[in-house]
Amino acid sequence: MKEHKENAVISKATIDRLPLYYRYLKLSQEEGIEIISSDELGRKIGVTPEQIRKDLSAFGEFGKKGVGYYVRELTRNIGEILGLNRQWNIAIAGVGHLGWALANYANFSPQGFQLQAIFDIDPDKIGRYINEIEIFHIARIPEIIAARNIQIGIVTVPAEYAQDITTSYVEAGIKGIWNFAPIKLEVPTTVHVVSEDLSIGLSSMSYYLSRQLY
Amino acid sequence: MKEHKENAVISKATIDRLPLYYRYLKLSQEEGIEIISSDELGRKIGVTPEQIRKDLSAFGEFGKKGVGYYVRELTRNIGEILGLNRQWNIAIAGVGHLGWALANYANFSPQGFQLQAIFDIDPDKIGRYINEIEIFHIARIPEIIAARNIQIGIVTVPAEYAQDITTSYVEAGIKGIWNFAPIKLEVPTTVHVVSEDLSIGLSSMSYYLSRQLY
Repeated sequence: MKEHKENAVISKATIDRLPLYYRYLKLSQEEGIEIISSDELGRKIGVTPEQIRKDLSAFGEFGKKGVGYYVRELTRNIGEILGLNRQWNIAIAGVGHLGWALANYANFSPQGFQLQAIFDIDPDKIGRYINEIEIFHIARIPEIIAARNIQIGIVTVPAEYAQDITTSYVEAGIKGIWNFAPIKLEVPTTVHVVSEDLSIGLSSMSYYLSRQLY
Repeated sequence: MKEHKENAVISKATIDRLPLYYRYLKLSQEEGIEIISSDELGRKIGVTPEQIRKDLSAFGEFGKKGVGYYVRELTRNIGEILGLNRQWNIAIAGVGHLGWALANYANFSPQGFQLQAIFDIDPDKIGRYINEIEIFHIARIPEIIAARNIQIGIVTVPAEYAQDITTSYVEAGIKGIWNFAPIKLEVPTTVHVVSEDLSIGLSSMSYYLSRQLY
């Protein structure tokens, strides 16, 4: 295993592709595949082999020319680059349908994301548990976030409450916000926001189907 | 409004960024903003202004040098490019937590995506309604997909059933699959698959936080 270049400037686009590589490499590893070429990987995930080689070269040398990438080694290395070799504690604010779905989403914990608390304002929900994780009143965000060393806060409240919840999270010491509300959140520069919009996947589908159906 | 270039070869990466532009332009339009520069748009969504200009130039000339883009015009144009100026009929297969959340997700229909049917195998769920949309047994996929002219099928069943459901969808005439199962689906080349993995957003967050916390 080679050290990755510590001071390289990595573009956001590259960082956003790494989890994609990681996901497919992990699937390949589980299928027992030992070596994969940038051509094969690229075909699977819809990225050109040139782009893959360029992205990975920013972190060091992971492949062998004319052979391919060693799947296990590359998976472990990308996992380390992404910081997936440690545990992240996460919280969810807003137990609507999406919050409920995320609280039950099984795919997070194998990647090191551990749900530690859930917040809501509905008295009927507070004190209940989802998968053994308690639902607390949002007024307890400062106390619980600190006590449980939670670094990442998920925002699944309605758009009109999203900024207030984000501010509470940030004041409580949260360093990363995963936002599902369709608004732009204001945070200090020390806090990282990732916004999800589920309609983006559908929109790009719409593009391809428009061209196919007419 | 200028015609966009019909025969330009557009990269997948560009197509994937268009919904991002569309989303923020729509927000800007709702906020009453009339003109936006590629610098401002880029800052908001984390894409370089050069990239934005390059992406949009592939479709035609939407901006005015030294002024910026006319928000309303550009929003409408990108909407047309993405095929969002028409109605798409969609179905969901698998009423677990995520399927339930998607069936309740309010953000689809304003963009032209209309949920027309839901499928499951659980006798307790079949015949029930989510937001006035009926849950049918998956055996009725061929009949319902055809009768309701459904073009896009969402897969929220467990991974081990995802391929079977996809095959049913494709045989019923579905042209686009929106896949939430963590597996690679086999489809004919005439069918377009968009795969979502909610842990990708968390993984890129993990990268940034790793660098901040140590």
